[in-house]
Amino acid sequence: MLTVNAYAATSATEPLVPTTVDRRDVGPHDVLIEIKYAGICHSDIHTVRNEWGEAPFPLTPGHEIAGVVSEVGPEVTRHKVGDRVGVGCMVGSCRECENCKAGDEQYCRKGFTGTYGATDVDGTTTQGGYSTHVVVAEDFVVRIPEGVDLPEAAPLLCAGITTYSPLRHWGAGTDRKRVAVVGLGGLGHMAVKLAAAMGAEVTVLSQSLKKQDDGLRLGAKHYYATGDAGTFESLAGSFDLIINTVSAKLDVDAYLGLLAVDGALVNVGAPAEPLSVNAFSLLTDRRSFGGSMIGGIRETQEMLDFCAEHHLGAEVEVIPADKINEAYERVLASDVRYRFVIDTSTL
Amino acid sequence: MLTVNAYAATSATEPLVPTTVDRRDVGPHDVLIEIKYAGICHSDIHTVRNEWGEAPFPLTPGHEIAGVVSEVGPEVTRHKVGDRVGVGCMVGSCRECENCKAGDEQYCRKGFTGTYGATDVDGTTTQGGYSTHVVVAEDFVVRIPEGVDLPEAAPLLCAGITTYSPLRHWGAGTDRKRVAVVGLGGLGHMAVKLAAAMGAEVTVLSQSLKKQDDGLRLGAKHYYATGDAGTFESLAGSFDLIINTVSAKLDVDAYLGLLAVDGALVNVGAPAEPLSVNAFSLLTDRRSFGGSMIGGIRETQEMLDFCAEHHLGAEVEVIPADKINEAYERVLASDVRYRFVIDTSTL
Repeated sequence: MLTVNAYAATSATEPLVPTTVDRRDVGPHDVLIEIKYAGICHSDIHTVRNEWGEAPFPLTPGHEIAGVVSEVGPEVTRHKVGDRVGVGCMVGSCRECENCKAGDEQYCRKGFTGTYGATDVDGTTTQGGYSTHVVVAEDFVVRIPEGVDLPEAAPLLCAGITTYSPLRHWGAGTDRKRVAVVGLGGLGHMAVKLAAAMGAEVTVLSQSLKKQDDGLRLGAKHYYATGDAGTFESLAGSFDLIINTVSAKLDVDAYLGLLAVDGALVNVGAPAEPLSVNAFSLLTDRRSFGGSMIGGIRETQEMLDFCAEHHLGAEVEVIPADKINEAYERVLASDVRYRFVIDTSTL
Repeated sequence: MLTVNAYAATSATEPLVPTTVDRRDVGPHDVLIEIKYAGICHSDIHTVRNEWGEAPFPLTPGHEIAGVVSEVGPEVTRHKVGDRVGVGCMVGSCRECENCKAGDEQYCRKGFTGTYGATDVDGTTTQGGYSTHVVVAEDFVVRIPEGVDLPEAAPLLCAGITTYSPLRHWGAGTDRKRVAVVGLGGLGHMAVKLAAAMGAEVTVLSQSLKKQDDGLRLGAKHYYATGDAGTFESLAGSFDLIINTVSAKLDVDAYLGLLAVDGALVNVGAPAEPLSVNAFSLLTDRRSFGGSMIGGIRETQEMLDFCAEHHLGAEVEVIPADKINEAYERVLASDVRYRFVIDTSTL
């Protein structure tokens, strides 16, 4: 067992504090990773503030992990010491159900094991990436290819795959050319970069035009303010695919009205309250309202390779560990362009 | 101009009464059809009772028309006198927008011209199929192939195409094998027959087991009562496609829970109230909630040809015109197996 430095939440109402966590011994199929960078995802905040149910405190969040392999178990074949690797939202699944076998571990019939706050194989609670080291089964560790720097790679493990997977699944740039991205935050800015690289004509739909320059620089061709009522009228029937990265309650019918025949509105975030949908909004133009949750391990590797090929990474602001609590407040205030990444050497 | 016998609603609260309607002169591209049978669709009742907005009274409903061509305009090339033909929910569209050009006239950007209650090319209000004759532009008239009798064919023009189109679009029997049909009424019984003929394994989800024998006879392999709470638990994750033919307000999340990964729930009816959807129900297993409205003219012909090839027609109860009002009450009481069809020789 290895005891390593970390940052943890001790309750839903207290700031995160420096601490240590125990990492299990490296098993035959495990990899010990020296974490270099860990992204701060909005869901870390939801979790430690008990907005998604009671969290098992003390809890170290973080599921956007980029680092280097420092030890491997005797039966590990996929990774070797010194490899640049990443870990996302999952560290395990049943590996036996039809969904796992199809590479959709995120939809494991028995539920996947989350990178933090879940019950691990040994009965302990998993602890996440705001830490210097982590032990993970090799088949939940992906390779970070040359061409993507580690700080820019970390957010790809959640924000990247969460947007890449639905863009691919719904055919962005191939079957569906006209793609809109709702919200230009951590997820949204990756959706814009990825969709543009896939060959789609990308439009950002943001509350205001505040980040318009960024949006266009990241690859969008058009940028509209959803706060302007005229936007919904002038863009009616304009898009083949809309990826909604905003977790706040959405006027679903208004966004469905922006879709052309066979268009799809896809949520990658989940507001706590139920959404209201008028069936006529779906019947008209044979539209769909769908959802997507992260992506499978094979697809995560594919996404990282795609990013390397297209020279893509997240836009990050690297912070030391003692700025984590401040960063949380700034995330909640949408004051980040576009992802905070913790330099774990400061832990 | 031709004045012909018909049945019409004169207000939202009075029974339908015998009357006459005027049919325009047969234009160069028009077909005069001697109507033999006209189906009674639930939407006829919604319309004449002002449940979908103020109807233009007096109004002759009916958009499930089967008959024989009795006259053609000089430039008609698709049909000839004596042909067995049908007319569904549409008698016109702009023919120029991208959707019309793609054969999706039902999604015409300018709105299609409904078979009754819409404004026709000459400024008059269209009058439907509860009538002895109708004049329709040839490109909105389809051929009823040998092998489908006219009474059984009439309901195919709405109930048939409304279920055929989404079954095809969402890949019933090919991409999506396990198909459930919610509701065994006019639309539902056609969905079962069509999906089974497409090679799907069909399950009926009905409030009770009252029509189970029928459902299995029509082609379903399984039949479950949705009134039994255990149904939703035991069938969780079981279907690739669910066609919902029930227009009443649905517990969307419960039905989404019956879908496997990449499953789709598709509404072909539209309840007046908005529906509630929890985004987590969509994110889990990458599910979709979609809608579909009738089908295009080319696809309607394809559906009729498919029915002839597979020896399919609607299950009908043929009635004389003076039973129309009684039939309306029986439709509302779900007391019909599975479609009333008016014998227009009794008008």
